[in-house]
Amino acid sequence: MEKWYGSTGPDGDIVISTRIRLARNLRSLPFKEKITKKQQSELNDRVRDSLKRANLGENKWSLLYLQELDDLERLSLVERHLVSHSFIEEPENKLLILSEDQAVSVMVNEEDHLRLQTLASGLSLEPAYEACSRLDDLLDESLDYAFDDVLGYLTVCPTNLGTGLRASVMLHLPALERAQIIPQLIKSVSRLGLTIRGSYGEGTGVVGATYQVSNQVTLGLSEKTAISNLQNVVRQIIENERAVRKELLKNNIDIIDEICRSYGVLRHARLLTGNEFHSHASNVRLGISEGVLDGVSIPTMNALLNRVGTATICAGHGQRLNPKERDYARAKVVRDAL
Amino acid sequence: MEKWYGSTGPDGDIVISTRIRLARNLRSLPFKEKITKKQQSELNDRVRDSLKRANLGENKWSLLYLQELDDLERLSLVERHLVSHSFIEEPENKLLILSEDQAVSVMVNEEDHLRLQTLASGLSLEPAYEACSRLDDLLDESLDYAFDDVLGYLTVCPTNLGTGLRASVMLHLPALERAQIIPQLIKSVSRLGLTIRGSYGEGTGVVGATYQVSNQVTLGLSEKTAISNLQNVVRQIIENERAVRKELLKNNIDIIDEICRSYGVLRHARLLTGNEFHSHASNVRLGISEGVLDGVSIPTMNALLNRVGTATICAGHGQRLNPKERDYARAKVVRDAL
Repeated sequence: MEKWYGSTGPDGDIVISTRIRLARNLRSLPFKEKITKKQQSELNDRVRDSLKRANLGENKWSLLYLQELDDLERLSLVERHLVSHSFIEEPENKLLILSEDQAVSVMVNEEDHLRLQTLASGLSLEPAYEACSRLDDLLDESLDYAFDDVLGYLTVCPTNLGTGLRASVMLHLPALERAQIIPQLIKSVSRLGLTIRGSYGEGTGVVGATYQVSNQVTLGLSEKTAISNLQNVVRQIIENERAVRKELLKNNIDIIDEICRSYGVLRHARLLTGNEFHSHASNVRLGISEGVLDGVSIPTMNALLNRVGTATICAGHGQRLNPKERDYARAKVVRDAL
Repeated sequence: MEKWYGSTGPDGDIVISTRIRLARNLRSLPFKEKITKKQQSELNDRVRDSLKRANLGENKWSLLYLQELDDLERLSLVERHLVSHSFIEEPENKLLILSEDQAVSVMVNEEDHLRLQTLASGLSLEPAYEACSRLDDLLDESLDYAFDDVLGYLTVCPTNLGTGLRASVMLHLPALERAQIIPQLIKSVSRLGLTIRGSYGEGTGVVGATYQVSNQVTLGLSEKTAISNLQNVVRQIIENERAVRKELLKNNIDIIDEICRSYGVLRHARLLTGNEFHSHASNVRLGISEGVLDGVSIPTMNALLNRVGTATICAGHGQRLNPKERDYARAKVVRDAL
């Protein structure tokens, strides 16, 4: 089955992906610190059985007990945005239920009892929310969600209380970044109850001009409103980025040269660090969407984002690699894909 | 007819080309400063007629009167090593006679009355000398060379007196350059009556690791001896370069990465300065000869050396280009060739 990132989604020239996450807890089990190992194990079984009963179409499900994975495989899940960092810190009794296309997943025994997640290509807030909500309803039939008529869904952290919803959109903003508009964007977005931050970059700040915008408020407004607010802001950012891109590329042979060289590096290099990959991939993505490059597609670049993380590269080799071996393996993955 | 640089010559992994030049003057005409315009014109006619009478095989000859060329075309001849810089300074009455494969040429009214030149691919001192000598003999039949039984051929500058021979070999020495052995090489070569200097580079020193070795002594030793001395020294340099290359590339993924990236830049860049071309071309040439790259050949790289000079690029467009237009045109020539 094709992975969710195998096709270009709406506004795929700028929006890489959309993610919906719902935090849920069961009334019948203690929350977080008070839950026993035995109860955690019981929770895993209950969720698994609940999913088994639910009719979830053609998707086959994998059950990944994190204890049974090695360090690299666990870190690779984080790199591919399938689990949170805190989820892998203590692997005991942590269960990830993952659909075959990797679009739908459930973390069991995260901070909350359940974290439901859907991923989709491009700007797909409503479809992704619908999919997550459908899964939520199916689980609700057999699980006793902790829900309060006034507060809404009860969660461990008050920042999730209410809808338990975190919606986020991953945007590629090379033109706004070059125009140094991002700091201003961060300010204005935060005044609207949203947050924006870089998606990639080790140590040296954001690389690859990839930014994640997400809602912050979960209490006092409905899921629909939260999603529609986010959608409106993202639409504005998209229009801005498109306009600045047009200006940026107009008769600008320097940037076209830069784009083509980046493509040349990704196609030919034998060593690529993660940061270097992201920065060249950003140029290539810009080149594709502005018609400078052909012979390479947005889904190919999206797929690469899921394949070049340090742990993912090592997990693919079944062993820890030293930095040079890793960079060599990463360059090979990239070269073969392009 | 294919140009002389269309094939790989002997030791073509390291030797780009061989050049032989003979300086000759006529007894019946005043030398250099004393020659009148009318006599210069007469000399042109005599050489032209002399060549016409001579049987020179299938090569067709072009007569290029430098006055009839524009600045760019004249500079392009210098860039392609077909004439000297001083030859184009005062174009009046300067005649270049050029064979169709560009391997054989005669400058008439250079410093000396005649400068005969042959070019050949790879290390080809003897064949190139034979070809030049054959042309020399044919011209000798109808021209009254100024020759002294003791001194040999009489020339304007005493450094050419005797054989009038300058033999030079253009070498690609990236490994010796990286190993910082060139300064030492320059010293030892000069002790043997030879000279070595960089072939390319504007302002910032040698680029492309391309060096020209040539004889300095023309008096007191025969042409054969001069050529055999040069050949012996060049053979030693070749063996050194090969050995150091082998060491350099052994398990060295960094240099392999550098080579592959250079290939990527040449294949994809939209802007290339001359210096940048030479430095990436040097890596690519090394990559070809050491089996790192396929899909590109040494003759392709040799041909590019004759096509990427600033004036040559502009002459191809029939107009002066600004630096950016030039770099764009150069990148296109390189991209199309690769």
